[in-house]
Amino acid sequence: MSDEIRLDFQRPERIGFDEAILCARKSDAQLAVIMERVLERDGRSLLTRLEPEVFARIAPNYLEKLDYDPVSRTAYLNWAPPLDTGSAQIAVVSAGSSDMPQAAEAIRTLAYLGAPAKQFIDIGVAGLWRLLERVEELNTFPVIIAVAGMDGALPSVLGGLVPGVIICLPTSTGYGVSNGGETALHAALASCAPGLAVVNIDNGYGAACAAFRALNMIRRARTARD
Amino acid sequence: MSDEIRLDFQRPERIGFDEAILCARKSDAQLAVIMERVLERDGRSLLTRLEPEVFARIAPNYLEKLDYDPVSRTAYLNWAPPLDTGSAQIAVVSAGSSDMPQAAEAIRTLAYLGAPAKQFIDIGVAGLWRLLERVEELNTFPVIIAVAGMDGALPSVLGGLVPGVIICLPTSTGYGVSNGGETALHAALASCAPGLAVVNIDNGYGAACAAFRALNMIRRARTARD
Amino acid sequence: MSDEIRLDFQRPERIGFDEAILCARKSDAQLAVIMERVLERDGRSLLTRLEPEVFARIAPNYLEKLDYDPVSRTAYLNWAPPLDTGSAQIAVVSAGSSDMPQAAEAIRTLAYLGAPAKQFIDIGVAGLWRLLERVEELNTFPVIIAVAGMDGALPSVLGGLVPGVIICLPTSTGYGVSNGGETALHAALASCAPGLAVVNIDNGYGAACAAFRALNMIRRARTARD
Amino acid sequence: MSDEIRLDFQRPERIGFDEAILCARKSDAQLAVIMERVLERDGRSLLTRLEPEVFARIAPNYLEKLDYDPVSRTAYLNWAPPLDTGSAQIAVVSAGSSDMPQAAEAIRTLAYLGAPAKQFIDIGVAGLWRLLERVEELNTFPVIIAVAGMDGALPSVLGGLVPGVIICLPTSTGYGVSNGGETALHAALASCAPGLAVVNIDNGYGAACAAFRALNMIRRARTARD
Amino acid sequence: MSDEIRLDFQRPERIGFDEAILCARKSDAQLAVIMERVLERDGRSLLTRLEPEVFARIAPNYLEKLDYDPVSRTAYLNWAPPLDTGSAQIAVVSAGSSDMPQAAEAIRTLAYLGAPAKQFIDIGVAGLWRLLERVEELNTFPVIIAVAGMDGALPSVLGGLVPGVIICLPTSTGYGVSNGGETALHAALASCAPGLAVVNIDNGYGAACAAFRALNMIRRARTARD
Amino acid sequence: MSDEIRLDFQRPERIGFDEAILCARKSDAQLAVIMERVLERDGRSLLTRLEPEVFARIAPNYLEKLDYDPVSRTAYLNWAPPLDTGSAQIAVVSAGSSDMPQAAEAIRTLAYLGAPAKQFIDIGVAGLWRLLERVEELNTFPVIIAVAGMDGALPSVLGGLVPGVIICLPTSTGYGVSNGGETALHAALASCAPGLAVVNIDNGYGAACAAFRALNMIRRARTARD
Amino acid sequence: MSDEIRLDFQRPERIGFDEAILCARKSDAQLAVIMERVLERDGRSLLTRLEPEVFARIAPNYLEKLDYDPVSRTAYLNWAPPLDTGSAQIAVVSAGSSDMPQAAEAIRTLAYLGAPAKQFIDIGVAGLWRLLERVEELNTFPVIIAVAGMDGALPSVLGGLVPGVIICLPTSTGYGVSNGGETALHAALASCAPGLAVVNIDNGYGAACAAFRALNMIRRARTARD
Amino acid sequence: MSDEIRLDFQRPERIGFDEAILCARKSDAQLAVIMERVLERDGRSLLTRLEPEVFARIAPNYLEKLDYDPVSRTAYLNWAPPLDTGSAQIAVVSAGSSDMPQAAEAIRTLAYLGAPAKQFIDIGVAGLWRLLERVEELNTFPVIIAVAGMDGALPSVLGGLVPGVIICLPTSTGYGVSNGGETALHAALASCAPGLAVVNIDNGYGAACAAFRALNMIRRARTARD
Repeated sequence: MSDEIRLDFQRPERIGFDEAILCARKSDAQLAVIMERVLERDGRSLLTRLEPEVFARIAPNYLEKLDYDPVSRTAYLNWAPPLDTGSAQIAVVSAGSSDMPQAAEAIRTLAYLGAPAKQFIDIGVAGLWRLLERVEELNTFPVIIAVAGMDGALPSVLGGLVPGVIICLPTSTGYGVSNGGETALHAALASCAPGLAVVNIDNGYGAACAAFRALNMIRRARTARD
Repeated sequence: MSDEIRLDFQRPERIGFDEAILCARKSDAQLAVIMERVLERDGRSLLTRLEPEVFARIAPNYLEKLDYDPVSRTAYLNWAPPLDTGSAQIAVVSAGSSDMPQAAEAIRTLAYLGAPAKQFIDIGVAGLWRLLERVEELNTFPVIIAVAGMDGALPSVLGGLVPGVIICLPTSTGYGVSNGGETALHAALASCAPGLAVVNIDNGYGAACAAFRALNMIRRARTARD
Repeated sequence: MSDEIRLDFQRPERIGFDEAILCARKSDAQLAVIMERVLERDGRSLLTRLEPEVFARIAPNYLEKLDYDPVSRTAYLNWAPPLDTGSAQIAVVSAGSSDMPQAAEAIRTLAYLGAPAKQFIDIGVAGLWRLLERVEELNTFPVIIAVAGMDGALPSVLGGLVPGVIICLPTSTGYGVSNGGETALHAALASCAPGLAVVNIDNGYGAACAAFRALNMIRRARTARD
Repeated sequence: MSDEIRLDFQRPERIGFDEAILCARKSDAQLAVIMERVLERDGRSLLTRLEPEVFARIAPNYLEKLDYDPVSRTAYLNWAPPLDTGSAQIAVVSAGSSDMPQAAEAIRTLAYLGAPAKQFIDIGVAGLWRLLERVEELNTFPVIIAVAGMDGALPSVLGGLVPGVIICLPTSTGYGVSNGGETALHAALASCAPGLAVVNIDNGYGAACAAFRALNMIRRARTARD
Repeated sequence: MSDEIRLDFQRPERIGFDEAILCARKSDAQLAVIMERVLERDGRSLLTRLEPEVFARIAPNYLEKLDYDPVSRTAYLNWAPPLDTGSAQIAVVSAGSSDMPQAAEAIRTLAYLGAPAKQFIDIGVAGLWRLLERVEELNTFPVIIAVAGMDGALPSVLGGLVPGVIICLPTSTGYGVSNGGETALHAALASCAPGLAVVNIDNGYGAACAAFRALNMIRRARTARD
Repeated sequence: MSDEIRLDFQRPERIGFDEAILCARKSDAQLAVIMERVLERDGRSLLTRLEPEVFARIAPNYLEKLDYDPVSRTAYLNWAPPLDTGSAQIAVVSAGSSDMPQAAEAIRTLAYLGAPAKQFIDIGVAGLWRLLERVEELNTFPVIIAVAGMDGALPSVLGGLVPGVIICLPTSTGYGVSNGGETALHAALASCAPGLAVVNIDNGYGAACAAFRALNMIRRARTARD
Repeated sequence: MSDEIRLDFQRPERIGFDEAILCARKSDAQLAVIMERVLERDGRSLLTRLEPEVFARIAPNYLEKLDYDPVSRTAYLNWAPPLDTGSAQIAVVSAGSSDMPQAAEAIRTLAYLGAPAKQFIDIGVAGLWRLLERVEELNTFPVIIAVAGMDGALPSVLGGLVPGVIICLPTSTGYGVSNGGETALHAALASCAPGLAVVNIDNGYGAACAAFRALNMIRRARTARD
Repeated sequence: MSDEIRLDFQRPERIGFDEAILCARKSDAQLAVIMERVLERDGRSLLTRLEPEVFARIAPNYLEKLDYDPVSRTAYLNWAPPLDTGSAQIAVVSAGSSDMPQAAEAIRTLAYLGAPAKQFIDIGVAGLWRLLERVEELNTFPVIIAVAGMDGALPSVLGGLVPGVIICLPTSTGYGVSNGGETALHAALASCAPGLAVVNIDNGYGAACAAFRALNMIRRARTARD
C-alpha cells in the first residue's frame, strides 16, 4: 500500500505551512506508511485527532520521534518546537475547563507552527467580571481565538470590546439543543458583533491555521519595513 | 357558522387570565363571529397577530370597540387598560429597534392584563456598557423579559447579572444561520447562565403570559401577608 | 493546571445561587482541582451529570464530603441540605418512570438550594384521570415543573388547568421522531396553553434554577410584607 | 397535450375509491385536459387544492359541472353527493377555527365518497372540559379524524379516551418551532397514547381516504353478516 | 419506590386494550416494581423493547411468568395467547429480513391482543414480481401493516393495489440519507397512493395497536349483525 | 460592467458540452451582457430558469435570436436544434402532469445538445399497470431519466425492472413532509434498487447533462467500432 | 426460518446484475440461511457491510467459499473474479486514505461484476497539482467514480475537466458540519459543474452498480458494432 | 420614539470601526430617527440591506446625504469615501455574476471603511483555468474574501493555493439542496484546505469587517516599523 500515499510536501511554499495528518478514520497501517514517508525525507509533521489508544498502539515504533499530548490528542513527529523566545501574539480565550481539548489543539498547533499563544480560561459571560478585567490585556493581541460551546455567547461579547482578528472556535460541549456544537457555531456566525470569523465545530487545528495565516501577514508587514 | 365557535370563558377562573384570539389564519368571517360572541356578553378580549390590512377590513364595524396598535399587531376589544397607577414590576429588555414588534406585543399584552412593564432598549451585548449601566436598576425587577434575535447572547449575559425571573423571547430577526429565530432560541435554551426560561420564537404574547404567571404568584404572596 | 481554574464565587450575591459543576466532559483531574478549590474555602457545591463510573473513581478521595445519588447523577460537595422544615412550594410533575432521572435532577437541585419539592408521577395524559384527580392540589403550588418526553402533551394540558408558574422540562425519552427530546421541546414551546416557560432538553438542573428564581421572588415578596 | 394524460380509471375497482386531482402546480391548461377526460366518459372527480383564483379562471367553462367550496379549496366535478340519509360514522374533531380548512377538506372528501362526517370543533386541550363533555358521544364513532396544529396535543389525549380508529391530521397552523406542522406531526407519531395513525401535514384528503378505507372494511363486515 | 407507580388498569375498558410496558430507559428496579403490581392483581402485560441483556438479568425471578422473544424483544407477562383458532385478519408485509425485528414486534403484539397475523416477507419493490403474485391474497385482508425502511417505496405500491386499511411501519434500516428511518417515514406520509396511515419509526407495537383498533371496529360491526 | 464577464468558451472541448446560463438571480443587465458576448462570437447558448416575466422584458431586443418555452422556462439563444433524424436514445419518465416543468427542462436541454428524448408520462406507481405495460419498451433505452416528486417511489420500482443507466430527477412537487423535494431526493438515494444515480431537486438541466455524458460515452463506443 | 427467504434470482436477466446481500442488521442465522440458498443452487453472491467480527463468527462454516476483504467489508461467496484481462474502463478517484473503505467497496464490487477499475488516490483539491497532472489520463475513462468526504469539492473540479460519466460517492469522513457526509452529498448535488450523478453517502456498492449500468450500455454499443 | 434609540458612538474607539445600520426589519420611522441621530452629530454611517423600495421612500428627505447603490443595497450617510489613493490590499473573488450583490456589499463596506478592494469575478472552479491564471496575482494580497454559493468549492481550491487570510462568504445562490446557502457554508467550514475562516450566509458586511480587522492589524504592524 505504500505506493498509494502521495503527500503534498510543496504545501509550505504555496501557503506558508505544511499538511497535518488527520488520524481519525485512518488505520494503523495507513498511519505507519504516512509517518515513514515523512521520516525518510527527515521531514516533520503534526498529527491531529490521535486518540490515546491509537497512540498506545503505534508509539512503540516511534518512541523518540513522537511528542504526544493526550488532552489535545496531537503529536509532533520528528519535531520539537523551539522554546518561546518572544512574546505571544495570539490569545486563546475560553469559558471553562470543558472546552480545554479544543483550546489545547489550537495551542499545540500554533506551537508547532512557531507561533506561541497565551491562554485565557474561565472567561465565561455568565461571570462577566472575569472577561472585563482582562479586556485591556486582550486589546494588545492582534489575533484572538475565542473558544465557546453551548450558547456560544463569548465571541459576541468579545467582538464588541477588542479590535483584533477574532477566530471563533465553536465546540461540541453541551447537550440537548446544543446539537453537538451547532448552536455555538450558528451563534458565532449570526453574531451581532461585527467581523467575527468562524471555523468548523471542534476544529482547533483549523482555528490555529486561520490565526497563523493572519499572523503570517502581520509578520510579512513587519518584515517589509526594513 | 356562528354555532361553531365555543369560547373558553371560564379560563380566567382556572388560570388567572383569559383566552386571547390569535388572528393569523382566521378568516374575516371567523374573526367577526368570535368578536360578536365576546361583545354579546359585554366581555373583553385581546387580539394578537392582527395584520394591519386585516384590521383595516374589519375595523369599520368595530370602530369604538377596538384599540389597535400596528407595531405589535395587537388590538384590545372592548377594553381600555387602566392608567398605570403603580410602578412597573416587569422589565422588557431588548437589543435594538429590529426586535420592537415582539417586545411591543409583550408590553401590550401585559398592559391588557393589568401589569404595566418598563421597556429597556439598545441593551445589545456588542455595546456592553449600555447593559452594564442599567444592571442596578434591572436588579429591582422581579421579572424580566429578555428579547433577542440573531445570536441571542443577551439572555446569557443578563442571566449572570440579575436574580429575577428571566423569560427569554427569541425573535426571528436576522438571516442565514439565524434560521428564522432558531439560533436565538437554541442559544437561550443552551445558555451557560442558569435558570433562564424560554418561550417560542416571536411569541411576545406567550412571554407576557409567562411573566404574568410569575407576577400573579408574587402578588398572591404579597396579598397573603395581610 | 490548578492555576487555570477561577471559580465564580460571587455568583450567589449577584443572582441568588451558586455555580454548579457540570461534570460531563471534564477529566478526573479537572474535577479534583475544582473540588479542592471549593473545599479550601470550606465552600459547598453541587455536581451535576456525574456518571456513576466517574464517581466511583473520584469518590475514595472525598468519601465524607460527597453525597451522591445515582438516579439523578448529582452529588452534594461539603453540604447536607437541611431537613425539610416547611411545606414544599414547588411541584415536580411527570408522566412515568422513564423520566425519573431528569425529575430527580431537578428535585435534588432544589433540595440543595433549600427549596424542597413535592413529586407527582404517573400524570400522563394517556390516562387523563390520574391528572384530573390531582388538579386541586396542584393549584396550591406557585411553581410547577412539568417533565415530559415523547409527544410532550402534559404541559399543554396542565397549562390550561392551573394558574402557577409552569417550567417545562422536556426529556430525551422516546425514539424515532421523538428526536432525542426535540419533539417534546417543540410541543412545549408551541403549546396552545399560554404562559409555559421552557428549558433545554434533559436540563433538570436548569429547570430547578428557573423555578428557584421564581420562588426567590415570591419569598422576597413575602418577606417584604413585614 | 391532450395525449399526454392517462387517468387511472380502474382505481375504484382496485382500492375502492377513485383518483382525485391535486390541482396545486398544475397549469390551467393541464386542469382543462384532465376535466375533459373525465367529462367525456361522463365520469366524476374530486379536485383538491384548487385555489380560489384558479377556480375563478376555469369556472366559466364548467359552471354547471363544478361544485366549489373555498374554505376547503375542493370542487366536485360532475357530481352531487347524495343527501345524508344515515347517521355519520366518522367524526372530525379539531381544536379551533384555525384548522378549519384542513378539517373541511377531509369532510368534503368524505361527503364525495359517500361517507358523511360529523364535525366537532373547539375541542382544544387547553380547555379540557370541552373535550371531556363530548367523550361519551365520541365513543360511538368507529373512526375519528383528529385535526391538530401547533403542539398537537389533542390526539394524545383523545387516544387515551376512545377505542375507535384515530387518524391524526396534523396542520401547519402556528409559527416558530411549529415548523409548518412538523411539531404537530411528530407529536402525533411519538404519542404516548397507543394506536394513533397519522397522515401528512395538511393532508385532509389523505386523512379522509384513510378513514374511508377503515369504513369500507367495517361496511364489508356489516354486509357480510346478511 | 413502589408507591410511585400507578398503572392505568382501566385502560382496556376505555380504549379496548391495556397499557404495555416500554422497558427502554427503565431501571431493573423499576421494571420489577411494575411487574409486581401486575402480578399481585393476577393481571397480564406486554413488555416491549426488552433487550436480551436486561431480560437475562430479570428473568430468574419470573421464569414461569415471562414468555420472551429475542427477535422482537417482547415478553408476555403472565399470559399465553390462545392458539390461533380462526383465520388471520391482519397481514404484515415486509421487504426483507432486515426489517424482521419491527415486523416481529407487531406480530407478537397482535398475538398478545388476540389478533393473529399472517406474515409476508421478501415483498420488496426492487423485485416486483414477488409482490404482484401475492396481490390477490392480500386483497382478502381488511388490515395490512406495511413494514419498510430505506426508501420506503413498498407502501406506495401497495396502496395502489389493495383496498384495505394500510398501516405503514417505517423502519430505521439503512444508512446515509435513510436518516434512521426518516426517509421511509416521509415517503409513506408523502405517498402518491391515497389513504395510507403511518406510525412512528420502528414502532411495531404502535402499528399493531392501530391495526387492532381497526380490527376491533370491524369485529364490532360483525357482532352487531346478530 | 461588460468587462466583468469571462465566459468559459473552451468547455465543450474539455467536457463535451457548453456552459448554460442560469438566469435565476441575474439582473436583466447581466443577462444582456452575457448574451452579447455569445452573439458577438456568433455562438449559441442555452438559458435556464428564465422566468416568463424576465423573458418578456428582454425578448424585444432578441426576438429572432431566442426560442423560448414557458413550461420548461428555457430558451435557445442563436440556435435551432436539428429535426430529430434518428430514434431517441434517452427516455424521460414521470408520474404525472405536476412534474412537467422539470421533465420539460430535461427534454429541452437534451434537444439543445442534440440528443432527442422520448417522454413517458403518467407512469406513477399508484397505478402500477401504466408502468408495467411500458417496461418492454423502456428496456430498449440505454439511458432513462426518472422524474418523481412526493414519495419518489418511481425510481425504485423502475430500478428493479430495467438495465439501463437511470438518472433520478427528484422534484419539489408536494407539500408537508415532501419538504420541497427532499423526501423524493432521499428516497432515490436510499433506494433498495441498485445503481440509481441522482441529481439535485428540480435540476432538469443537470439530469440532462448527466444523461448526455452517458450517451456521449455510448456514442464514442459506437464510433470506435469503425 | 428458512422458508422465509425468497431471493430474487431473476434479477440479472432483468437489470444485468444480481442482488447483493447487505449484511448490516441481519442476524447470523439470517445470513446463514441466505448463503445456503445461494450455495444450494451453486450460485454466487456479493456480501456487503460484513463487519470483521461477524465474518469471524460465520467464516468457519464457509472457509473455502468466502473471499473476504476487511477494508471494504465485502466478501465474495462462491466466486473468484477472473484475473483482469483487459484494460480498466472505470476510474475510482479519491482524495486520501480516509475514504479508502468506501473506494474499496466500489472497487471490490466492480471486480465481482467483471469490471476491473483503476484507483487514483491523493487527488485532493487542496493540492491541486496532484489532480492536474492526471487529467489527461482520466480523460480516457468513460466512467469515473469520484469519492469525497468533508467539503466534497473534488467532483466539482473534476466535472469541469473531463467528459466521462461521473458518479459521485460522498463519504461520511469528517466531523462537525460535515454532518456524517451530508455536506459532501449536498456539494456534489449542488455542484456548479454540470452532469454529476450522485449516490447515497458511503454507498460504494451503489456507486459501482451505477457505474456498471453505464459500462453495460457502452459494452452493448461496442458489441452492436460487429 | 426618538428617545428610544441609543447608538454606540464609542465603538470605533473600542474595535476600530463604527456601527452599521441594518435596515432590514426596521420601519421607515425607525430609520429616520437613527439617521437624524447620526446627522445631528455630523457623524457618518453605513446603511446595509436597504431595499430599493425603502430607499425610494426615504430618499427625498436625505437626497444630498445618501450615496445609494442598488446592487449591494448599501448607502453611505453623510460620507464620500476618498478616491483610492493606494493599491488595494484586499481581493474579493467570486465565481460569477449570481453572487454579485454579496460581493458588492463587501466591496462597498470596505470602501466605506477606507480599504479599497480589487474584484476578481468568473473565478469558478468548473472552469479552473480562470482561477489558475490569476494565482500569482492573488498571492500578493494579504487578505482575500472568497464569495461562493451552491457547492462552495472555490474556497477549498483557493485555500490550497495562496497564503493570505481567506474570509469565506457563502451565498444563498442556488436551489434544492443548496438550502439557501447552507451547503456553501458547510463546505467552507468543512474544507480540506486549512485555515479558512467563514462568515454568515450572504453577510458581505461581516466579511468586509473581518477582512478589515486583519488589515487593521497588518497596518498597525507596518506603522510600528517606523
